[in-house]
Formats: sequence, C-alpha cells, structure tokens
Amino acid sequence: MALLVLKFGGTSVGDVERIKNAASKVAAEVKLGHKVAVVVSAMAGVTDQLINYCRSVTPHPNPREHDAVVSTGENITAGLMALALQQRGLNARSWQGWQVPLRTDSTHNKARIIDINAASLLHHINQGEVAVMAGFQGVTDDNSVTTLGRGGSDTSAVALAAALKADRCDIYTDVDGVYTTDPRIVSNASKLDRVSYPEMLMMASLGAKVLQTRSVEMALRYHVPVQVLSTFGNAIGSELPGTLVTDEDENMEQKSVTGVAYSRNEDKVTLTGIPDTPGKAAAIFSTLARTGIGVDMIVQTASHDGKCTDITFTVAKLDLDRARQTLESERAKIGFADILTDKNMVKLSLVGIGMRSHPGVASLMFETLAAKNINIQAIETSEISIGVLIDESYTELALRALHTAYGLDAE
Amino acid sequence: MALLVLKFGGTSVGDVERIKNAASKVAAEVKLGHKVAVVVSAMAGVTDQLINYCRSVTPHPNPREHDAVVSTGENITAGLMALALQQRGLNARSWQGWQVPLRTDSTHNKARIIDINAASLLHHINQGEVAVMAGFQGVTDDNSVTTLGRGGSDTSAVALAAALKADRCDIYTDVDGVYTTDPRIVSNASKLDRVSYPEMLMMASLGAKVLQTRSVEMALRYHVPVQVLSTFGNAIGSELPGTLVTDEDENMEQKSVTGVAYSRNEDKVTLTGIPDTPGKAAAIFSTLARTGIGVDMIVQTASHDGKCTDITFTVAKLDLDRARQTLESERAKIGFADILTDKNMVKLSLVGIGMRSHPGVASLMFETLAAKNINIQAIETSEISIGVLIDESYTELALRALHTAYGLDAE
Repeated sequence: MALLVLKFGGTSVGDVERIKNAASKVAAEVKLGHKVAVVVSAMAGVTDQLINYCRSVTPHPNPREHDAVVSTGENITAGLMALALQQRGLNARSWQGWQVPLRTDSTHNKARIIDINAASLLHHINQGEVAVMAGFQGVTDDNSVTTLGRGGSDTSAVALAAALKADRCDIYTDVDGVYTTDPRIVSNASKLDRVSYPEMLMMASLGAKVLQTRSVEMALRYHVPVQVLSTFGNAIGSELPGTLVTDEDENMEQKSVTGVAYSRNEDKVTLTGIPDTPGKAAAIFSTLARTGIGVDMIVQTASHDGKCTDITFTVAKLDLDRARQTLESERAKIGFADILTDKNMVKLSLVGIGMRSHPGVASLMFETLAAKNINIQAIETSEISIGVLIDESYTELALRALHTAYGLDAE
Repeated sequence: MALLVLKFGGTSVGDVERIKNAASKVAAEVKLGHKVAVVVSAMAGVTDQLINYCRSVTPHPNPREHDAVVSTGENITAGLMALALQQRGLNARSWQGWQVPLRTDSTHNKARIIDINAASLLHHINQGEVAVMAGFQGVTDDNSVTTLGRGGSDTSAVALAAALKADRCDIYTDVDGVYTTDPRIVSNASKLDRVSYPEMLMMASLGAKVLQTRSVEMALRYHVPVQVLSTFGNAIGSELPGTLVTDEDENMEQKSVTGVAYSRNEDKVTLTGIPDTPGKAAAIFSTLARTGIGVDMIVQTASHDGKCTDITFTVAKLDLDRARQTLESERAKIGFADILTDKNMVKLSLVGIGMRSHPGVASLMFETLAAKNINIQAIETSEISIGVLIDESYTELALRALHTAYGLDAE
C-alpha cells in the first residue's frame, strides 16, 4: 500500500464529465489499496475568465485582490472533485490552501511555498478519506490568499507529496508522458520510461511544456518520484504507464542523449564595434543585470584589425525592448558602434546525463547541423546539455536530423 | 462622520459595469467623510451556476462541499469590488468569511451566525481602508466554509453592522424601498419612509421579498437601523432616500395599517367528519409536529348534527404532500372521513403597529372584502397584523380594495 498524490490539470478537469472521469482514476488507485491525496487545477478557461474580470475592472489589478479572485477557480474544482468521489462511494474532503495550510511568502501572483503543515490533512487521509487540495494557491502569515503563478498546481502537488512523504506524485495531463522531443514536429519521437530530475529540469526550462520548472526543482530537492501520464489514456495500476521523473540510475547513462528540446523564447542581441579594452564585457552585463535582465548565451568575436570586438548574447523575448533601451542609455559609457537584434532565433538543446560518460557528443551535433547547411550562431554547454542558437526557419529540419543522429527515433 | 455598512445584492453587482457603479456609491459615502464596510453578493446568476455544477456531479451534494463550491461566487465579487474601489483611488481590501472571521454553526447550506470577530477588520477601516466582505458565508470552528442560505448576504450585512456598532446598514437592491404593497399589482402603492422592525418582519415573512426575514430579526435584536434603497436610483447623502427600518416612534402609530402583504406559499388542508370528542385537534397537530410540519392558520367548524366537526388549516406548499401522507397513515387513530386540499389559496395580511391603538381595523377589512363578494376561508391575527385566506384568483382585486380602504394609495 502506497501513499500517492494525484494531480489533475485544467484540461483533465475541464468540465463536470471530465471531473467524473478523473475521479474514476482516483477511485481505481483507492481500490488498489493506496492512500490518495488529489490536487486539482481550475477547470480549463475559468482562470482566464477570472483574470479577465480583474483586468476589465482595472488595467493593473492589485496583486492581493487579483489572487483572491483568481484562486476561486481551484476551490470550485476541489469541491466538485470531492463530490464526484463521494458519488463513487468514497470518503472525500476538499482543502483550500488556507485550510491545509499551505504557507507562502507574500509575493502575490507568483508566491513561493514556505511550508505545508500537512498534519491535519494526513490525519484525515489516515482515517480513510481522499484529500482533495486546491492547487495553485496558498496563504500568507497574515491570512491573505496567494497564487503560485502559471502552472503552479504542479508545484502544489509536488510540495504536498514532499510534505506527506508520498511514494509518488502522478501528474495527469493531456499528454501520456515525456518524449525524446516534440512529437508534433518529429513524428517518431518516442516516450521516455524514465528521466532524471536534472534532465527533466533542462527539458522543462528549455521549452518542453510538460511540467513547470519549479515543480521539477522541488521534486529534485525532496526526491519526490514524479510520474507524468495522460488522464485520457494510460491504464491505472500497470507498471509505469507514463514517464517517471526520478533520481538517476545506471541504466540512464547508457544513452548519451535523452532528448532534444527547443525554445523560441530567446532573442539575439549583437553589440558591434566595442573597443577591445579590458572591462567592456563586465560593463555590458552588469548594466543589464542591474535592470534585472538575465542573459543566456554569450559569444565574443575578435575583430579583424584587433582594435574592436563584437559581442552577441541572448535575452528572453519579454526583455528585448528593455535590454535595448538600457544599453542605448549607456552607449557613451560602454562605447559600442551599433546594436543589432534578431527575433527569428531558436535554441536547440541536447539533454542527457549520459553525456558525462560519452565523449564526442558535441562534435556529432555540429557535424549533423553542418551536413544540413545550418549555421550555428551561439553555443552553450552544461554538464548534461549542449545548446545551439540557429535561425528559426531550420527548427524542424534540425530537430529531425539530431533526433535521428542520436538514435532517438522510435522503432 | 458615521460608520456605515453598505450591502449590494446580486443584480447590483451583476457584471463588471454594475460593480463599478456600486463602487461609485461607496466612494460617494467615503467622500462625505464616512467610514465604510461593504458586503457583496455573488454576481447575478453565478450562484445558480455553481449550484448546477454541484447537482450535475451528484443529485444530493454533500452540504460541506456544496458550500465550499457555492461560496466562491461572493469571493469573486469581493475581490472585484476591492479592485473597483482601488481604481477610484480608495484604499480597499477584500475579506472572505474565514478571514474576518465570521463564525457560524456547522449547519451547512443554512448556517446560523455565532459571532463576528470584527476587531481586525475594524482596525483596517480605522486605518482608512474600505473593508469589502464576501456575504452569504462563514466558517465553522473546524475551519469548514459554510453558507447562510438564500438571501444570506442581507444577514451577513446586518450582522457585520451589529458587530461594528455601525450607525446604519444600507441594503442596496433593485427596488428603491419598501412599499405599502406590491407595486407590480397595485400601481399606486406608495414607498414607506420609515417602518418598524416588527412590521418589516411581518412584511418580510408574509411575502414582501425586499429583505430576508433573518436579517430583520437580527436588526431588531441589535437595533441596527437598516435602510433599503436602490442601486440604480436614489441619490447619496440625501435625507432618507429609501425606506428606513428602525425602532418604533410615535409617528408610526398615526396610521392604523402600514402595508398589505400577500403570500402564495400556503396550501389549505381540510379534514372532514372528525368525531367531536376531546383530544382530536391535539392528535392531528401533534402528528404533524412530530414530522416537522408547521401549521399556520387553523379553523374548526362545528357540524350541524353536533356529532362531528371539520378542521381546516394551512401548511407551507413544500410540506403539503408530506402532510397528507402523514395524516393518511394515522387516519384510523385520529378518525376522520376525508382529507381535502386546495392549492389555489392566497393569504393577505394587513400589517401595522398602529392597529394596537386603532380599533375597528378588522371589521373594515371584512366589510371591504364582503363588498367585493370575496369569501374568507380562514383568519389569523397578531398584535400588529390580520391575515385572511382567500381564493387566489381574487388576489389583485382584494389587494387593491384593501389598499384603498386603508388610505394607502399614493396621492
């Protein structure tokens, strides 16, 4: 008998029929003898409607009141899920964030979880109840309701699993697992049975939209095994029907590359004609850092005459305009000739803990892209990933070529 | 400078534009120098939608979960109202029932208020904030959310006014006050400037749907002056723009009758051929009382031969079938010939504290109805009311005739 946390996202609880379907998944786990806590998102579309209400009252809603309004969506689903479970003959009870309580800091709209006092909730579970917690929300020390930011219900679920010392956290979603790459682009992408936390973190932050990054960070920190599976497909009780995100094991290192992620979220900035004197790079990046703009890939190119250099880097799409303004205002101090920007970029990343024991991973990547005449504009590496910046129009071509080159195609 | 509680019902906050309009009423009171707490209902239609969600999951929703779901409607409005007030430059904060806290018993769906600890809310008001409390809801000692039953937001508002020792509780609704009778039936019904608590209680429980009965009971108990006024009409700050429900004063007794109420909520039951022996009436009404059926008007008619009697009484429409079944099952014991029922009845009631000092009120009523050939089937009196049961088809005719006879027609 295990203690499980089951999380259902917005499309999984999109209407009353889907809530009933999700309840049948919960009931199946209970029937297998497991103790179960459920975490639910708002019904698909409800959160957007509530956000629109706020914005139609005022263009910049006060974050506290915004959270008070927007968090109601999850409370509705939690109550309905408890009712659906009761309708199936189970004991069940809904828990709003403040009822648990799930304590957060007071950064409304994107609060961070401080702790979950799950004693009372666990007591009810041990009495034979299914606990249904509203995701995405928490409560501050002064009893204000907070929300955790988009996709925060994943984080709620993993945090609850950690607090309960649950055996597994199952994330029910509209895909049946984590794939080697985006199956909409590469039709023979294959589902991964297991993936390590650091790999999943790379894949999540690089654009694979299966799990929110923060939830994976939390799973890693507390060693919570997380299973991603489909509400509409996978059979309950079968061995690993989805993808298990877990601690590394030896088998994982057999392949050099686990998956290929991509992100269209970064724009390229190039500063040209920078005098080739010490401290210039520091001046550029400390200027950006002061205004809260994070920089990702950085490439410095020596000039032909040795007197000046170009520096290329990427910033998040959202920050591009602000980055340009900030640099323009410091142009005289930094000293550069021109700012060039390019929005039509994509970053492709090979991810795999096997890279540590397989040399030659990068060279195969470069050869594969070169064979397709794809120009690499920047490179970034970590212990378990290699990322390249290329022209966005080559995305599909490059993804498919790399997927094949690293032996990831499904048989 | 006064401390006011302003309550806005469902149609007054029916959409975002109406919430903004209600906020303008609040802002006008603040501008006059008043301290203000606001109590809001759910946006019109939202509560019904939430109830329907619950019922489509299960035909008999668990009351606790039902309340958890249904109470979210008021939380949405409270947050949006706070935002609308902030948009007008006011300091404002929403308060959910548990945040106040407004403590209730655990009778979910129709909980009764135990107490309101308004210290924290009052502290915020005294710091210059408008407090916006979600109506209709409270919290039990074990932190479950409760609702107060239909129209419960009126009760929330009066209870908050009592807890704050507010100078007045203004109930904003879609009518501009309390009328001498239903203006949809009697076109020259006139608006009352003042009405006493006991009169309002009679009018409310007899079918004038302006204020929920429980809210008037609470206003009476704590001597909270309650003003009923329209969200869409009355000017702010004018002297008594709506109807003030308050303690009696001498002026109120000048007229014998304050208003004429009607209720279609009662059905007539007649038991015929009851042996005329002691204890029969007791047997009938204790049987009904044991099954929780309340009886209103009672008339006993002696038979011609002196051997048996008929007994006529009224019960709430909802209870009619149950009353019949209960009596049938005890027919042998009670001993009666037949049960006759009539659903086409209406109860008309004259209400007025002036009755106590004006004799002859009842006789004018009977003469007026007789002159229109309207048969009276039962009579009920209290210190400040006289009610008669008549055939429903005479409702309009009788209401107009009585309204004229007692000098209530607007000039």
